Amino acid sequence: MKNLVGAALLGQSGGPTSVINASAAGVFLEALKQENITEVYGAVHGIKGILHEDFYDIKQEDIEQLKLLKNTPSSAIGSVRYKLKNPKVDNSEYQRLLEVFIKYNIRYFFYNGGNDSMDTCNKISKFFKKSGFDCNVIGVPKTIDNDLNGTDHSPGYASAAKYVATTLMELYHDATVYDTQMVTIVEIMGRNAGWLTASAALAQLKGQGPDLIYLPELPFDFDDFFVQVQKLIAEKNKVIVAVSEGIKTKDGKYIPELFQELKKDAFGHAQLGGTAQVLADEIQKRTKAKVRAIEFSLLQRSSAHLASKVDVEEAFKSGQKAVRAAINGTTDKMIGFKRISSYPYKIKYVLLPLKLAANHEQKVPIEWILPDGKGMTQEYIDYALPLIQGESKAPLVDGLPHFAKLKKIRVEKK
Amino acid sequence: MKNLVGAALLGQSGGPTSVINASAAGVFLEALKQENITEVYGAVHGIKGILHEDFYDIKQEDIEQLKLLKNTPSSAIGSVRYKLKNPKVDNSEYQRLLEVFIKYNIRYFFYNGGNDSMDTCNKISKFFKKSGFDCNVIGVPKTIDNDLNGTDHSPGYASAAKYVATTLMELYHDATVYDTQMVTIVEIMGRNAGWLTASAALAQLKGQGPDLIYLPELPFDFDDFFVQVQKLIAEKNKVIVAVSEGIKTKDGKYIPELFQELKKDAFGHAQLGGTAQVLADEIQKRTKAKVRAIEFSLLQRSSAHLASKVDVEEAFKSGQKAVRAAINGTTDKMIGFKRISSYPYKIKYVLLPLKLAANHEQKVPIEWILPDGKGMTQEYIDYALPLIQGESKAPLVDGLPHFAKLKKIRVEKK
Repeated sequence: MKNLVGAALLGQSGGPTSVINASAAGVFLEALKQENITEVYGAVHGIKGILHEDFYDIKQEDIEQLKLLKNTPSSAIGSVRYKLKNPKVDNSEYQRLLEVFIKYNIRYFFYNGGNDSMDTCNKISKFFKKSGFDCNVIGVPKTIDNDLNGTDHSPGYASAAKYVATTLMELYHDATVYDTQMVTIVEIMGRNAGWLTASAALAQLKGQGPDLIYLPELPFDFDDFFVQVQKLIAEKNKVIVAVSEGIKTKDGKYIPELFQELKKDAFGHAQLGGTAQVLADEIQKRTKAKVRAIEFSLLQRSSAHLASKVDVEEAFKSGQKAVRAAINGTTDKMIGFKRISSYPYKIKYVLLPLKLAANHEQKVPIEWILPDGKGMTQEYIDYALPLIQGESKAPLVDGLPHFAKLKKIRVEKK
Repeated sequence: MKNLVGAALLGQSGGPTSVINASAAGVFLEALKQENITEVYGAVHGIKGILHEDFYDIKQEDIEQLKLLKNTPSSAIGSVRYKLKNPKVDNSEYQRLLEVFIKYNIRYFFYNGGNDSMDTCNKISKFFKKSGFDCNVIGVPKTIDNDLNGTDHSPGYASAAKYVATTLMELYHDATVYDTQMVTIVEIMGRNAGWLTASAALAQLKGQGPDLIYLPELPFDFDDFFVQVQKLIAEKNKVIVAVSEGIKTKDGKYIPELFQELKKDAFGHAQLGGTAQVLADEIQKRTKAKVRAIEFSLLQRSSAHLASKVDVEEAFKSGQKAVRAAINGTTDKMIGFKRISSYPYKIKYVLLPLKLAANHEQKVPIEWILPDGKGMTQEYIDYALPLIQGESKAPLVDGLPHFAKLKKIRVEKK
């Protein structure tokens, strides 16, 4: 709806990325310029902050610090993993959200997150519409998993991919340094979609990558894997393997699941981890090679010093464009990217229905994955390579990154 | 001895660093300029390559690629962990080395490594001298552990320290993002000397570091550790801990040792790892917080993209100066650094007796370590901060580092 006058609210949600704050910078700096936006709020820990009327007053922040957000990793206003109840069963939380939005006259709502967050955003948007409350709701995409539906890619992916490719190249030099048999197994995030693990192919492209790459999109066959590893040990002493944390056997079992009981998170997702270690242990039992497991863990999603410039700029613009779209009367949409061309790299920002993005995981096309861990096709390289170009990082002070430090002044409760 | 005419040989040894190749670049580029040096060889996998007469012919490499070595991590000509027998018990390996040196007329020998490598270098130097074979032997220091005796610091340390500090700052942003209780335990390399773990204090200095830092120089008390963690959880929900892989109880037991049998490497050193995971498991049993262990593993010693410029330059110059010293008749010495001042940072290159550097581990002064995991004193900050200044890294091609690619042409066996 056009000409809404009121406060704007941003929430950050889900796992952090190197650029989720770049989107926040885009939203905040653009919102502060808009006449129709009376206040600019940041929800403290996403949806939880809204339920508790817990907001930061962004108008009291220094513009300089908001600009530094562009290169500050993770979620400056706090993130959350919280699943709202199904509104058809219990809509009390949605009623509460509505009450808070009305009380603070929040007319512009931006939610920055991945699939689950877009689902949350979609449900809120639909509930407000049904309730007759005018509020323009725009989703701002982010996920290192790159599995948001309907968009060419998502902010956060490219920087994580650049981290994975760069770090694997460096590891390649380290893990091949002795003349002894060594197997190095690297575990990369990505529960069901192998986009991030696929970026290991960018290191392969440079001749300094893993020998084997396993995505969760194809069933993982341990026997075949072991044959490949044995062959490579015989051939060249050294083997480097990149595996997604989410690889599964054809019976649907995760690798650690074969050995331990799994915990689940608030969204009912299995808590993975240990895939590389379990594989390493199994290879160790069967060969004389020295076997090492390395987990990129939180490093792959927080290494802002290795962010892709393309990614940082797109994340920032996604935030800006979300505000502009909302001001122009758009609601119930997520910012998305449509690729025009890869060489030269060109995209168009598009507005996707929130429903489309929510809860459907966009996976790596099976035809882009070479079988038996052999890597990725040229189609994938052409897709991914343009995304990791350029550098954008925090200025250095004392040789260390100078990240944003917000004042974090709370909005007085009404 | 002056005016020796013959071949120069470089060996790389021990665990890689981000800058060991910078020293190689210094040695190679300087050696190629020297009239008295007839050939420039690289030992394939250090001492093993010499025993097997296995050398790369560096004269056949492109100068451009040798320059790129300056920013290429790890050991381009291959490293080794190999302990020569005690010459007093069995000097057959030394006889063999002498035979090879004579056969290839190697009159300049440079060995780039840490304590064990300087010990090897020292023994070779002494054996040659006793045998009446004229060869100028110079050790070039490197170790991320920073424990070489007699030198202010060692190349490799500063870049690893910059990695640790930068990455901990980024992790700080990630590991404090939810409003739930979280304990993050990060494991940092350093078997007996806590220099690298101490660099976590540089992140603390920025207010974005770990809450607790544990070095192996002080005995680790699990009960006190647990009290500190509990207190911090109560105070602020989040705890970040940096521990050296080598922390030990006052009874001299490594943390994993309390739970598993330890393997030993070729030098008789305990094979550690898992310290953070074991601590995380123990904390998990005793609290409701989410606990996560992160190992910096090989990443901390190979992340050339985060190298310190001071470190890269010093590593390169150490190589150059080793060659110049040898040409000027120096032998049986290691290149070392003497600090003139910290602000402004100024060092002098010095020549230390190999015997002095060999096998004595230089530890962090106890008086620089605050008790109970509280961090480091200002003395440490003043020591370390100047070392991590500036950036020096490989040029980017396709958004990824462009590392050296040597031709690796073998010297024909005589």
